[in-house]
Amino acid sequence: MTDPSPAGRLLGREPLVVAAGADLLAEALTAQAVPVTRVDWRPPLPGSAEDLARVLADPRREEANRIAVSRVLAATAQLVDVRPAREVLGLGPGQFLHAGPPVDWERASGPMRGALVGAMLFEGLAATPEEAEQRLARGAVELDSCHHHGAVGPMAGVVSPSMWMCELRDEVHGTRAWCSLNEGLGKVLRYGAFGPEVVERLRWMATVLGPLLGAAVRAHGPVDVRAIIAQMLQMGDEGHNRNRAGTLMLLRELLAELIESDAPAADIAEAVRFISGNDHFFLNLVMPACKLALDAGRGVPGSTLVVAMARNGTDFGIQVSGTGDRWFTGPAQVPEGMYLGSYGPGDANPDIGDSAITETAGIGGFAMAAAPAIVRFVGGQVQDALDATRRMYDITLAENPAYQVPVLDFRGTPTGIDVTRVVRTGVLPQINTGIAGRVAGTGQVGAGLVTPPAACFTAALGALARDAPPLAR
Amino acid sequence: MTDPSPAGRLLGREPLVVAAGADLLAEALTAQAVPVTRVDWRPPLPGSAEDLARVLADPRREEANRIAVSRVLAATAQLVDVRPAREVLGLGPGQFLHAGPPVDWERASGPMRGALVGAMLFEGLAATPEEAEQRLARGAVELDSCHHHGAVGPMAGVVSPSMWMCELRDEVHGTRAWCSLNEGLGKVLRYGAFGPEVVERLRWMATVLGPLLGAAVRAHGPVDVRAIIAQMLQMGDEGHNRNRAGTLMLLRELLAELIESDAPAADIAEAVRFISGNDHFFLNLVMPACKLALDAGRGVPGSTLVVAMARNGTDFGIQVSGTGDRWFTGPAQVPEGMYLGSYGPGDANPDIGDSAITETAGIGGFAMAAAPAIVRFVGGQVQDALDATRRMYDITLAENPAYQVPVLDFRGTPTGIDVTRVVRTGVLPQINTGIAGRVAGTGQVGAGLVTPPAACFTAALGALARDAPPLAR
Repeated sequence: MTDPSPAGRLLGREPLVVAAGADLLAEALTAQAVPVTRVDWRPPLPGSAEDLARVLADPRREEANRIAVSRVLAATAQLVDVRPAREVLGLGPGQFLHAGPPVDWERASGPMRGALVGAMLFEGLAATPEEAEQRLARGAVELDSCHHHGAVGPMAGVVSPSMWMCELRDEVHGTRAWCSLNEGLGKVLRYGAFGPEVVERLRWMATVLGPLLGAAVRAHGPVDVRAIIAQMLQMGDEGHNRNRAGTLMLLRELLAELIESDAPAADIAEAVRFISGNDHFFLNLVMPACKLALDAGRGVPGSTLVVAMARNGTDFGIQVSGTGDRWFTGPAQVPEGMYLGSYGPGDANPDIGDSAITETAGIGGFAMAAAPAIVRFVGGQVQDALDATRRMYDITLAENPAYQVPVLDFRGTPTGIDVTRVVRTGVLPQINTGIAGRVAGTGQVGAGLVTPPAACFTAALGALARDAPPLAR
Repeated sequence: MTDPSPAGRLLGREPLVVAAGADLLAEALTAQAVPVTRVDWRPPLPGSAEDLARVLADPRREEANRIAVSRVLAATAQLVDVRPAREVLGLGPGQFLHAGPPVDWERASGPMRGALVGAMLFEGLAATPEEAEQRLARGAVELDSCHHHGAVGPMAGVVSPSMWMCELRDEVHGTRAWCSLNEGLGKVLRYGAFGPEVVERLRWMATVLGPLLGAAVRAHGPVDVRAIIAQMLQMGDEGHNRNRAGTLMLLRELLAELIESDAPAADIAEAVRFISGNDHFFLNLVMPACKLALDAGRGVPGSTLVVAMARNGTDFGIQVSGTGDRWFTGPAQVPEGMYLGSYGPGDANPDIGDSAITETAGIGGFAMAAAPAIVRFVGGQVQDALDATRRMYDITLAENPAYQVPVLDFRGTPTGIDVTRVVRTGVLPQINTGIAGRVAGTGQVGAGLVTPPAACFTAALGALARDAPPLAR
């Protein structure tokens, strides 16, 4: 017979113990042979308890997130053209875009300033770096975030009117996104270099490479970038710092059309040498593909889905589906990683670039388990790469059935960062990234791992809480 | 004080127990709280105990294997040309090569017969399949094993004088090896198909593709095939049934030279479409690269290293370093795998092809852990792929520092099958393979996993034992 009182019901059978947080209680019980189910738990980010309660109680949240994530997962991404920024983005002379949340010359970091100087030289808006700096300091150029124009840019992400852009289309949602052409590694504009070889390369890209690629894409018809991303994840790429297989598959796709174009064979050969010599070329197609997916998830009232993570070299900013186009920022961190040649941590600029759009979409650092060889580039052990992906399932809303990780038994990548999960667990998104030299003109100094400042997520949660219905007391 | 007698030394301390074989003893001791170290052990292959003892006691064995394996690991592999078989192999009209140990028309399986018929039609030695069969049955064609001529051929592996061959060179050992050009999947000669489309494709390969590739390779200079194999293992390929990244990297290597050749753009475009549409194209370069490595390990007296595993569709044969060019054969098994379309196990021919040279060299089935996505092609679970590679370390002599598996913490692939280890453990080499239809003319019906018959290894051990010094009694 059991005692029917509440205390009797509790004590009348073997206790079921679930232990969270500090191990002391669980260990003491285990020593007494009491079965304990341990759950992984960490306290929420400090000062967030009330906002968290309010947002978690928002009756719109679950359905809003379901809608937002299903749109993200349904988005397609096809390369449909390569055209100049002045045409596709309507940029006029003296209008430049840059990576991350808005920043002005005054607050711009070294590599951002270097890239802006290089763009001035490339556009013929200044004859010398000094003149370019003076004009930029006087506000002669109108700056805005790439993200405000449907674009994304790696590292400094500077886009000027004469640069040629990959144009991607999401047929499901009828939207487009753009990204410049990848310049390669080392001394390149996006890492803040602006020497003559940088500007000369940009000119060749605008006069030979861009037009050739545009013609090949139009002759070929739309290239399914999402399908290539799905395949590259089965070929050791994670789509942010490893794009080797992706680049080769893109090249394969356009090869016959390049060869059959009217351009001189020498130009075609130079173009394929350039692309095939740059394992990162495809990154600039992965990024707008991710942008298309996340843009589809924007603007759902009550949704706690992160739709952009981006850095300008000074600030790290995020945008959230339920809070419109508002940025929630914190200071960008310096990545931990591996350095090229004699460079070291002292040469590193804080985190920069729109390329964290890949992690926002569930690949890059979130798919490191698909690319164990990446640890040779960003540092760490193979186990760290596997653990990083596994950890990201704790802060995401879905698994992407299109993007699978073979070694995790073809599990879909962890997709759709949830502000409430980040704040509740204290687990921050894992980002793979290049590292720019902090002095303008330096270029790339390394590659590594970084996380956003927690403040972005607590600030976003605060805004979501203010927008949520009051808690019943 | 301890008892200094032997029994006292044994009993005067806690017992150290190592348990092998049946679990009963280990379990009984564990139940009595005695620490037990379990080792994985299986009895040797039946009837081999005496030969095994003799070969293991051969004083030449360790040093011979060290020499043989170090040669295998030191071998290089560079693609240096693409030329017709009549030129590079000196094949005259009516001389054909085939995969596996020697076989005649009488004992040839369906796909081997089909491929021979197709080669007759391609060479103009017969006007109809019926005429070809009659002539072949009358012995009008001289047949020999590819392996006897420094060549390897996938599946039926039929080489006739007009086929164009990749020519690879090992600079360290001054040797060369050859393989035909890959035709793609489905209805192709190597799977035993011989319809008009098969013969027409072979003609195009001999008149357009081969000459184009030869010119591109000569213009480019030697292509480092070993370096591409090393990279493909970091990109989800295992080099036997997955060659997707390898094919793209080969194409990348030769692209500019193809474009800059004098050939018509339409021919170049057709050639790159053909190569880039065939993920297996690079297999026919991996195979001769593996052949070069293993040929370097041949002919070391006392060595128990397997230097070839090859199948002709009827017999599975192996060759061993210490026993010269002699074949040790057993009946070829039917692979277990996945079937195309409506084909099933009843349509499958027994194991066929020289492509098991990849496993002999430590990749293919031995490197499945590098290619977890392969289970979607050959069947099984991701864990099976990881386990297969781990198991192969038990029967191999070395780990190849050039060929690493990222997910196994960059461990080198298990390389150099040791006849004594196979016989002692009963663990048979794991081979990935395509499956040919058993009826001549069918083509490919699937892909799967297979092991050699144990008899090859016990027979080889017997020969090694007869060659070893007598045991002191």
